[in-house]
Amino acid sequence: MKSFNVVIIGGGPAGLTTAISARSTYPDKSIALIRREKTVLIPCGIPYVLASLNTVEDNILPDGPIHNNNVELIVDNVVGRRDNVLLLESGEEIKFDRVVLAAGSKPFIPPIDGIDKEGVYFIKKDMEYLRNLKEKVKESKKIVVIGGGFIALEVTDELLKLKKKVTVIEKLPNLLPLVMDNEFGDMAISILKDMGADIYVDTVVEKITGEGRVDGVVLTNGKKIDADIVIVSTGYTPNLELAEKMGLAYNENQGIIVDEYLMTSEDGIFAVGDCAAKRSCFTGDYSKIMLASTAMAQGRLVGSNLFKIKVMKVFNGTLGTFSTKIGNVSFGVSGLTESQAKKLGMDYVVGTNETVDKHPGKLPGASKVYTKLIFSRYSHILLGVQVKGGDSIGELVNMYSVIIQNRMTDMEIDTLQIGTHPLLTPSPIAYPAINAAANAILKWYKEKP
Amino acid sequence: MKSFNVVIIGGGPAGLTTAISARSTYPDKSIALIRREKTVLIPCGIPYVLASLNTVEDNILPDGPIHNNNVELIVDNVVGRRDNVLLLESGEEIKFDRVVLAAGSKPFIPPIDGIDKEGVYFIKKDMEYLRNLKEKVKESKKIVVIGGGFIALEVTDELLKLKKKVTVIEKLPNLLPLVMDNEFGDMAISILKDMGADIYVDTVVEKITGEGRVDGVVLTNGKKIDADIVIVSTGYTPNLELAEKMGLAYNENQGIIVDEYLMTSEDGIFAVGDCAAKRSCFTGDYSKIMLASTAMAQGRLVGSNLFKIKVMKVFNGTLGTFSTKIGNVSFGVSGLTESQAKKLGMDYVVGTNETVDKHPGKLPGASKVYTKLIFSRYSHILLGVQVKGGDSIGELVNMYSVIIQNRMTDMEIDTLQIGTHPLLTPSPIAYPAINAAANAILKWYKEKP
Repeated sequence: MKSFNVVIIGGGPAGLTTAISARSTYPDKSIALIRREKTVLIPCGIPYVLASLNTVEDNILPDGPIHNNNVELIVDNVVGRRDNVLLLESGEEIKFDRVVLAAGSKPFIPPIDGIDKEGVYFIKKDMEYLRNLKEKVKESKKIVVIGGGFIALEVTDELLKLKKKVTVIEKLPNLLPLVMDNEFGDMAISILKDMGADIYVDTVVEKITGEGRVDGVVLTNGKKIDADIVIVSTGYTPNLELAEKMGLAYNENQGIIVDEYLMTSEDGIFAVGDCAAKRSCFTGDYSKIMLASTAMAQGRLVGSNLFKIKVMKVFNGTLGTFSTKIGNVSFGVSGLTESQAKKLGMDYVVGTNETVDKHPGKLPGASKVYTKLIFSRYSHILLGVQVKGGDSIGELVNMYSVIIQNRMTDMEIDTLQIGTHPLLTPSPIAYPAINAAANAILKWYKEKP
Repeated sequence: MKSFNVVIIGGGPAGLTTAISARSTYPDKSIALIRREKTVLIPCGIPYVLASLNTVEDNILPDGPIHNNNVELIVDNVVGRRDNVLLLESGEEIKFDRVVLAAGSKPFIPPIDGIDKEGVYFIKKDMEYLRNLKEKVKESKKIVVIGGGFIALEVTDELLKLKKKVTVIEKLPNLLPLVMDNEFGDMAISILKDMGADIYVDTVVEKITGEGRVDGVVLTNGKKIDADIVIVSTGYTPNLELAEKMGLAYNENQGIIVDEYLMTSEDGIFAVGDCAAKRSCFTGDYSKIMLASTAMAQGRLVGSNLFKIKVMKVFNGTLGTFSTKIGNVSFGVSGLTESQAKKLGMDYVVGTNETVDKHPGKLPGASKVYTKLIFSRYSHILLGVQVKGGDSIGELVNMYSVIIQNRMTDMEIDTLQIGTHPLLTPSPIAYPAINAAANAILKWYKEKP
């Protein structure tokens, strides 16, 4: 029987990061990573295999870091556990001191009549499946996308680049409904319509039609939309089969229960990434956010705390920070939206700013930047930001994420020293973070006697 | 005699920001802004009038914010003061309760034989002068640039876009010698050489030659370089004439002496921006850094503290954060470089990372990103960052600036939650801030017993 000090189950970003971090921290421990897949895909790159990347292979997560870090790679399936021994599908048994579950997530399958027809696809993290989907997309003219979240819109953007006739159908009243406020959803609708997509929001698919193979969808209002294929992207659910088999506590909707050091209900067994239940850093409530970046932060924490807790590292709950690009416009979010703050019954103040991302604005290639900040009314702390603009949004939103994680207030943001450059950022006079904070401060100020 | 509660002298970004901030904070006060220039230029945009912008007029700082904020604009020259009355060149006198000097800076003129010849230009913040320079550049084939700092290289980049034969001459041993470490200076040299420039470092100009009008330069090694015009960009010095006339304390090399609230040696008189002496946020020593972004932070602080100190706002010294673009490569700096840390006798640890700014790296348009972080050895606090990469560097360096201003440690950076997107940022697994911090942590870790 093989034996390792540390066994990581799952080869996605969470598992890989855990392995690298464990190796750095514990140079003398033996480490193995067990995964089902021969090759692993970069999860956030998956939509881009459809058009931007030539082949699905271009989106492979390289195994170099596994080998370079002296981690033994085992391609197999864990089917159970007996005390501190893992049972593999191949019949092999592996002894461990510590186990980290990084089992990931799988597409949520909405209960729609006809969802199992041939020609209905999900955004799965599976190489063969995606190769086939890429092929089918190529052959199709009309495609229906069910879902209006980030991934659905990234898929839509890719399909539009391929000049497909795309129809997006979202159940909730706007695009990006769970992650951005209405004005941003409206912008996304307008961009996608300009690119030629048909967009239906507040619209439910009653059934997916077709004899044998899909030929379209019927909406609850009776309207029929033709489709050569249907792509469903309505969220993900944690992979919990292994937790069940291993006898770990979990919550069906949220994932494997972990403490602040990501340890499960059993000593020495940890869970990270999409399969682990997460709590919001604002409210402590369960959070459905599944992000590679959160998984990374967890992986680094677990990897370095496997055998001894290092007190300086505590995972204080999930802060959702993400960005996307639709057409030539990028969107970014960190923390709470206004509608989330309202729903939570929080008292808040909104600060906004609109400017351009170069200065002077007459420089070629300048894009409009719109910024919305949500501050806690009494603590003055920044709770959330939403931004729309050019490609710089990707790193800009990380600046906001750092601001939120440091619990900075409007006054502190107002006197931040930031750098600007004509070709790379908005003007210092119009710098969005500062001006939107000043806008919020002005609102407080005017309220006061 | 006209009378105002607040008079701001100087119409650049520092003066303008002070005016806007004063208006927001004190809606009932009368505010005037006195400036010499009929129209003001965006200072950081000035290099870009040479090629990227069609006309110098495209780089005008608009007066809209002055008028929209009910600030009276007076175009005149302040020539002296009698108690709380300003004396203007036109003969007019203006009574004030508070004055803010935002007098800016002017090009440093190096003591080179022939520097006053016709055909020698400086990067002045003067519309007419720049119009003439733009014209002369157009007519020239061979141009010598004296200086190798950010502005000199931005000018060089613009001249290369116009297909001029450009020679850059820097006295110190590398390009960007005062602001970035050697490896970055080497990259700048290599980029500019690839674009066709001749670069001389560690090289002193002995004299500028030509009968009547410039025809070249002679180096101390005897070499002669032909030039139709010479552009000198070797730094700026604070405008101190007005401080002298107003009887304020100043330091000839550093600027007008101000306290932490930017008040000068006289009650009720403040100074902001390039004309004010600044101290480093790391050492408390005088700092020569002149940045619009620092001026902004000061202007906002003074504008809101003119009549009553609001304790929550304190300017804790200058943190230099800036970015630039040379060819298609962007550079960014925040805080201390390694060579500065070494010179200060600090104990430090360096963490580095190299990756690409999209993921997978096979996505079109991906640029290499190189990151260098400098941590204090004992406090583990981030002291400085230098980065090289694509256009996202502009906002990326602002994220680092926020990290430094929050005095975050390597461990805190290691578990930051950041957002990533295939088209907009590096991969979460390779995210530079985190991986460079982890690289530094590993170095500590290995040193320990």
